[in-house]
Amino acid sequence: MWQLFQFPLCPFSRKVRLVLGEKGVAHELVRENPWERRDEFIDLNPAGETPVLVDSTAGIALIGSQPIVEFFDETVDKMPMIHGNGAARAEIRRLTEWFDEKLFREVVEPLMHERMRKRLVSRESPDTRVLREAMRIANGHLDYMDYLLDHRRWIAGAGLSLADFTAAAHLSVVDYLGALDWRGHKQTKDWYAVMKSRPAFRPLLGERMEVIVPPAHYDKVDF
Amino acid sequence: MWQLFQFPLCPFSRKVRLVLGEKGVAHELVRENPWERRDEFIDLNPAGETPVLVDSTAGIALIGSQPIVEFFDETVDKMPMIHGNGAARAEIRRLTEWFDEKLFREVVEPLMHERMRKRLVSRESPDTRVLREAMRIANGHLDYMDYLLDHRRWIAGAGLSLADFTAAAHLSVVDYLGALDWRGHKQTKDWYAVMKSRPAFRPLLGERMEVIVPPAHYDKVDF
Ligand SMILES: N[C@@H](CCC(=O)N[C@@H](CS)C(=O)NCC(=O)O)C(=O)O
Ligand SMILES: N[C@@H](CCC(=O)N[C@@H](CS)C(=O)NCC(=O)O)C(=O)O
Repeated sequence: MWQLFQFPLCPFSRKVRLVLGEKGVAHELVRENPWERRDEFIDLNPAGETPVLVDSTAGIALIGSQPIVEFFDETVDKMPMIHGNGAARAEIRRLTEWFDEKLFREVVEPLMHERMRKRLVSRESPDTRVLREAMRIANGHLDYMDYLLDHRRWIAGAGLSLADFTAAAHLSVVDYLGALDWRGHKQTKDWYAVMKSRPAFRPLLGERMEVIVPPAHYDKVDF
Repeated sequence: MWQLFQFPLCPFSRKVRLVLGEKGVAHELVRENPWERRDEFIDLNPAGETPVLVDSTAGIALIGSQPIVEFFDETVDKMPMIHGNGAARAEIRRLTEWFDEKLFREVVEPLMHERMRKRLVSRESPDTRVLREAMRIANGHLDYMDYLLDHRRWIAGAGLSLADFTAAAHLSVVDYLGALDWRGHKQTKDWYAVMKSRPAFRPLLGERMEVIVPPAHYDKVDF
C-alpha cells in the first residue's frame, strides 16, 4: 500500500491526492511537517519537502509532485492527466508548471508562511503588507484563469487535465487561508465549483489544519 | 524549422540545446533577452521567460524547458532522456527538478543577477556577500553530486539521462561566471569532463555572452 507523506495545507500533496483519487490508486496518509526537518524524512528526500510517496514493500520512494504524477499517468490508464497530441501535452505541462511555480512562489508560499508557519512555528503575527500583496497578485492570477476559460472549456484546452487539478490544489490552499476574493471572477468561480464537486476533492475540503480556521464558504460547492 | 528563443547564459536554454543536439533535432537560435520584456515575446510566453521553441509553419510554440524536453522525448527515439522503469524515471525527474529548481534558485539565479544582469542592465557592481554565499552553496551541490556519482555511474542511475544534461547545463553557467572551485570534487569533475566532450556540448562552450568573460579553464575538456 502506498503511503503519502504530507500535511493538510501542502498544495503539492493536494495535487497528488487529487490525481491518486481520480485514478483510483489506494493510499494512506502519513502526517509530515517538513519544517520540523525530521532526520528520517530528510533521509527519504534530501530536499526535505512533501509530498513523498512510499511503497515500503516494493522499496520504492517517489519524490515530488510532478515525478509522482508522471509515474501514475504512465502506469494507470484511468483518467489520463497529460493527454492529446504533442502540443496539447506541452500546454498542459506549461500551465501545471505555471501554478506549481509562479502561483506558488508569488501567492501560496508567502501566504503559507505568514498565516501558517508563523502561527505554528515562530508564533509571530503575520505581516499585513505581505498578505495584501499576495492577495493582489492572487487576483491577477484569477484574471488570467478567467481569460483562459473564456477561450477554452478547461484550463489547458478542450479536456480536463492535470493543469485543472494543479490549479485547484493551489487555489484551495489560498481559499482556505482566506485570500481569494471571488467577486468579478465568474468563469473561474464556475470552474472551481465543478472541481470542488468531484468526489476526489471532497475529502480534502473536509480536512482541517490545526489552529487555522478556513472561511465559511471554503468547503461549500455552492459559494 | 524550429526556432529557439534564448540567450547564451540561460541554463534552461542550454538544457534544451543539449537535448535537441543529442536527439539530432535541427533548430536555429533566436536571441531573446527576457529582461527587456519585449511585447511580442510576452505574447508568446506570458511568463516572459526563455526558452521558447517555435515552429511558425506548424503554428506550435513550446514553452519552458521541461515541456520542451518531454515533447521531444515522447516523439524522438534517439537518445532517450527519461528511461527505465517507473522508479528510474521518477528518479531522473526528481534530480532534473533538483537542478532546475534548487541549484538554480540557490546558486545560478543569484550569480546571474549579480554578475550578468547588474552588469548589463543596472550597471551596479555585484554584491560580494551574495557571490560568496552562492559559491558556498555551489560547493555543497558539488558534494551532493560527488556522493551520487560514488554510488552510481551517472547522476540519476546506471544510464546517461536528462538529469546529467540538466546538471551540466546549470553547472556550465556557474562555471562561466567563475563560481566553481573544482578542487576536492574529483568524481564530479571527471563526470563533467565527459559531458563537456560530447559533440552537443561543444557549440555552447564556444559561445560568449557580451561583456562577460569566462575563466580560462571554462571551455577546456581537460581542466
Ligand atoms: N517541487 C516540489 C515542491 C514541494 C514543496 O515545496 N513542498 C513544501 C510544502 S508545500 C515543503 O515541503 N517545503 C519545505 C518546508 O516547509 O520546510 C513538488 O512539486 O513536490
Ligand atoms: N521553469 C522555466 C524557467 C525559465 C527561466 O527562469 N528563464 C529565465 C532565464 S534563464 C528567465 O527568462 N527569467 C526572466 C528574466 O530574466 O526576466 C524553464 O524550465 O524553462
